[in-house]
Amino acid sequence: MKIAVLGTGVVGRTLAARLLDLGHEVAVGTRDVDATLARTEPDQMGNPPFAEWMTQHPAVEVLTFAAAARFGEVVFNATAGSASLDVLTAAGADNLAGKVLVDVANPLDFSGGMPPSLFVKDADSLGEQIQRAFPDVRVVKALNTMTAALMADPRLLADGGHSTFVSGDDDTAKKTVTGLLEELGHADVIDLGDISTARGSEMLLPIWLRLWGALGTPMFNVKIVR
Amino acid sequence: MKIAVLGTGVVGRTLAARLLDLGHEVAVGTRDVDATLARTEPDQMGNPPFAEWMTQHPAVEVLTFAAAARFGEVVFNATAGSASLDVLTAAGADNLAGKVLVDVANPLDFSGGMPPSLFVKDADSLGEQIQRAFPDVRVVKALNTMTAALMADPRLLADGGHSTFVSGDDDTAKKTVTGLLEELGHADVIDLGDISTARGSEMLLPIWLRLWGALGTPMFNVKIVR
Repeated sequence: MKIAVLGTGVVGRTLAARLLDLGHEVAVGTRDVDATLARTEPDQMGNPPFAEWMTQHPAVEVLTFAAAARFGEVVFNATAGSASLDVLTAAGADNLAGKVLVDVANPLDFSGGMPPSLFVKDADSLGEQIQRAFPDVRVVKALNTMTAALMADPRLLADGGHSTFVSGDDDTAKKTVTGLLEELGHADVIDLGDISTARGSEMLLPIWLRLWGALGTPMFNVKIVR
Repeated sequence: MKIAVLGTGVVGRTLAARLLDLGHEVAVGTRDVDATLARTEPDQMGNPPFAEWMTQHPAVEVLTFAAAARFGEVVFNATAGSASLDVLTAAGADNLAGKVLVDVANPLDFSGGMPPSLFVKDADSLGEQIQRAFPDVRVVKALNTMTAALMADPRLLADGGHSTFVSGDDDTAKKTVTGLLEELGHADVIDLGDISTARGSEMLLPIWLRLWGALGTPMFNVKIVR
């Protein structure tokens, strides 16, 4: 499958590398390809420059947001939540129309320091904001409740014995995404319902962040025992 | 131990019955003892009248909020979140001073219909509101992330193989509560940190409510796999 991953941070890189390993054609989207490839310093989070990562993943195409959106049959939004609507606007509603958008972003607001709060919650969600702004896109909220390594390869923890969630208005799109998640190794994909249920998975972030602090590692995940 | 349970709904009844079974002395607190015992109709949630429940649990004392707060060495807040500050005021800051208050309530706002939203979240929590209003009480947020039957007897599901959380500023109080939770059968009690971490466990409610809908049963719980 042709898959576009919007975003060159850890989440985008980790998903892109894994999807490539699984045999998909993968393009990573960024605002300015030349600028992204020209950077030689680690990013704000201390990750090595993207060009360095590219040397290990030469099969990945690096495209503008718009070209990546045109390329992908499925598009992952792996950008910061605060940038997502802007990035998707740059990707272009026409290029995204009819496509499945896997929204992995969280509406984290770092303006008040750590831990971040949520800039949208409870009566609305980032997933819904994106669906409203791009009504022709088939938005599926997924994977936003765990660290990047586990999104891409859940079997790294407890042989995949934990849960992930999908939220979206389009059942066929949720089926496509569930299939992709199962390919990644997610054994327990729970369909929460329509896109408004993204409120629930996004509001998991505050306890997720506290658990990271309490456990001293992000290598944990929620399992819904029933 | 002398334990007071404030609230006569399902959560209060279920906890009171189980704590009694475990050999504790239990008093249930209510606003007006005579009125509570005089009711002959099921409550709003369809639960049988409290007097009927009492016939099966004659060892439970029924007291006013204030008398129950005086009685208890540990006090459970098992009231509706929207009523909690009012109930604790009726219980009396003097009666509660120095005691461990296990805050089981959630800040659910049903005014907009179902599913409820949260009347406090993200930048504050009900647990913190209670701690600020009653600075001499040792508030520990706990058990608010699961259905009443599992709060009281977690081994009813997967032999107790799931998680619960404590949040609070007083480490000794958290130790007392953790001991009580372990008596109930909770095998994995995770200390999230100070009372501000109650934001995290309270913000689990939206996904909990959606999971209830998706799974068709409230008999599930979160396990933190790590």
